Amino acid sequence: MATPADTHAMRRAVALAARGLGSTSPNPVVGCVITDAAGQQVGEGFHQRAGGPHAEIHALRDAGERSRGGTAYVTLEPCNHTGRTGPCAQALVEAGIARVVYAVADPTPQATGGADTLRAAGVQVEQGLLGDEAEAGNIAWLTSVRHRRPYVLWKYAATLDGRIAAADGTSRWISSPESRADVHRLRAEADAVIVGSGTARADDPHLAVRGIDGVTQPLRVVIDTDATAVRPGARVLDDTAPTLIAVAEDAETALPDVVRLPRAGHGLSVPALLDALYARGVRSVLLEGGPTLAGSFVSAGAVDAVVGYLAPVLLGAGRPALADAGITTITEALRLDVTEAVRLGPDLRVTATVPKGA
Amino acid sequence: MATPADTHAMRRAVALAARGLGSTSPNPVVGCVITDAAGQQVGEGFHQRAGGPHAEIHALRDAGERSRGGTAYVTLEPCNHTGRTGPCAQALVEAGIARVVYAVADPTPQATGGADTLRAAGVQVEQGLLGDEAEAGNIAWLTSVRHRRPYVLWKYAATLDGRIAAADGTSRWISSPESRADVHRLRAEADAVIVGSGTARADDPHLAVRGIDGVTQPLRVVIDTDATAVRPGARVLDDTAPTLIAVAEDAETALPDVVRLPRAGHGLSVPALLDALYARGVRSVLLEGGPTLAGSFVSAGAVDAVVGYLAPVLLGAGRPALADAGITTITEALRLDVTEAVRLGPDLRVTATVPKGA
Repeated sequence: MATPADTHAMRRAVALAARGLGSTSPNPVVGCVITDAAGQQVGEGFHQRAGGPHAEIHALRDAGERSRGGTAYVTLEPCNHTGRTGPCAQALVEAGIARVVYAVADPTPQATGGADTLRAAGVQVEQGLLGDEAEAGNIAWLTSVRHRRPYVLWKYAATLDGRIAAADGTSRWISSPESRADVHRLRAEADAVIVGSGTARADDPHLAVRGIDGVTQPLRVVIDTDATAVRPGARVLDDTAPTLIAVAEDAETALPDVVRLPRAGHGLSVPALLDALYARGVRSVLLEGGPTLAGSFVSAGAVDAVVGYLAPVLLGAGRPALADAGITTITEALRLDVTEAVRLGPDLRVTATVPKGA
Repeated sequence: MATPADTHAMRRAVALAARGLGSTSPNPVVGCVITDAAGQQVGEGFHQRAGGPHAEIHALRDAGERSRGGTAYVTLEPCNHTGRTGPCAQALVEAGIARVVYAVADPTPQATGGADTLRAAGVQVEQGLLGDEAEAGNIAWLTSVRHRRPYVLWKYAATLDGRIAAADGTSRWISSPESRADVHRLRAEADAVIVGSGTARADDPHLAVRGIDGVTQPLRVVIDTDATAVRPGARVLDDTAPTLIAVAEDAETALPDVVRLPRAGHGLSVPALLDALYARGVRSVLLEGGPTLAGSFVSAGAVDAVVGYLAPVLLGAGRPALADAGITTITEALRLDVTEAVRLGPDLRVTATVPKGA
């Protein structure tokens, strides 16, 4: 049975894991806390980037000899394979760890089996402590493993009556400076940021993260079906972050680094785009596109969660936040679960997720 | 200076006042707490209905002789006039109250002066304690005094993308049972509930309060410009609550109890409607109409606050929550202040008010 001290240590591990969001793909985020035989915390760490040491290795190094006879709390089952870094299960055994508590089992075939290895070496192993929190913290990676496509978070900013612009197209600013700053945090936690040609043409967006130190910039992706929206000199093409322009297979373009995808409807195939991104190691996507692009993602069943910045503003006319998503009647509506609703300056930030199994 | 005990007593008075919401018009809601000379609470009361005793009288009766030398905490300045009940200022003096603390000054010419009367009688008088809370609790009445029209709260239920129905018109149910039950609380707190002909025709609504004991039913108002939506036998015409049908001056109708109003645009003049309701003693209105009616109220500058029940649902098509409100560009948007955002079952309930002076 988990003691309050166990829960406290795992909660810290979950918080540590979150520090890796946006920089570990294609790996998960993982946090680890080590306590000594007397239950005192003696080490902690988190997985910082793919190719770097796993969370357990950071924490073991932090703890040194004091880990002998102690407990390791890990948000994800310790790995069993020798990738770019050695297997963590073996490292924990060698460090003399007596007990391992992990929150979520590793679902990947090549990494699984860590718990068995530990048990075979005489280590006491327990699973499931704060499993829901740890899963929520790793939801992007876990979803990408499950569906073999990136996790997609759709972000929008709208009025209380669901408009993203007034009747004449003006929209600066509907949401507050606090909400706009918060979007940079979402970008920082994502592997890629996607907009469509409409946004590219109207806003010439930069799409890089501003105002967050030491951030791993996300891949900037523009869906420019006919290769007409992104021109040489566009801000998205600067060297702040990598950029990928997705165009139709038959589009004519002189831009470098484009990916050619099959057309679907008026745009590109969403599944094909997500396949291409997955193949490049992208495990989480922030969809910042306009109503049309968001509609095509919803229609493709490719939205996993939504963050809405709702400004206490009424317009009564203007572009709606979401355009045609292939839904014609109420029983077909995409129903979500609200996971968080907070005030952000004058606005509300609502986070909602597609229920498991939906 | 107010002590913590003073604040505690006034907070209780504010809570008591709220019990009168929906049944005191054209009077305000008022709560009163009386403590004895030692600071012990010995009486409390609230104004329950127009024509009945004021809050101070209820509380003085509750306290009896123990009020002598004590303090009266009142959410609104005690009245000075002899209406259907005697002046409260005089009653407090006669009961031997030594100190009166009130939250908000009475702005009505015929009631004002209570504080002066008390001071002239040697009572210590203090104003402003929990003034903001007390004003918020009495906002409908205070607004109606200020603008000489009823306070208007617009209620809507929509998806996260601002739709009140799917593309095919289906809408049952977007919001949750919890949200739908909460609407009955809003109705109970209002003097009148308004819908338009579209809602009347589509839903044959009943508009009475269900599920709340001892409620004063609001006046049910249907804006039926051409007198074509409400037919004999409509549910809104039953005897559960009073009903008023507003029609155009030139409309032909055989319905009883109609009010004839000038046309404006495709409907009726909103100011004329509010004038007519004010003349009938209505001080607060819950606007439950559809997008068109809400748009005409926003356009007329006649919405004081909004309650949105936001369901975590996406549709991408269908009727928007608010139709044309005469706003064409972002600088003309109606900007509100969020005063509350709470989870209600699976939904969010967002309350926002038009800023003072706007």
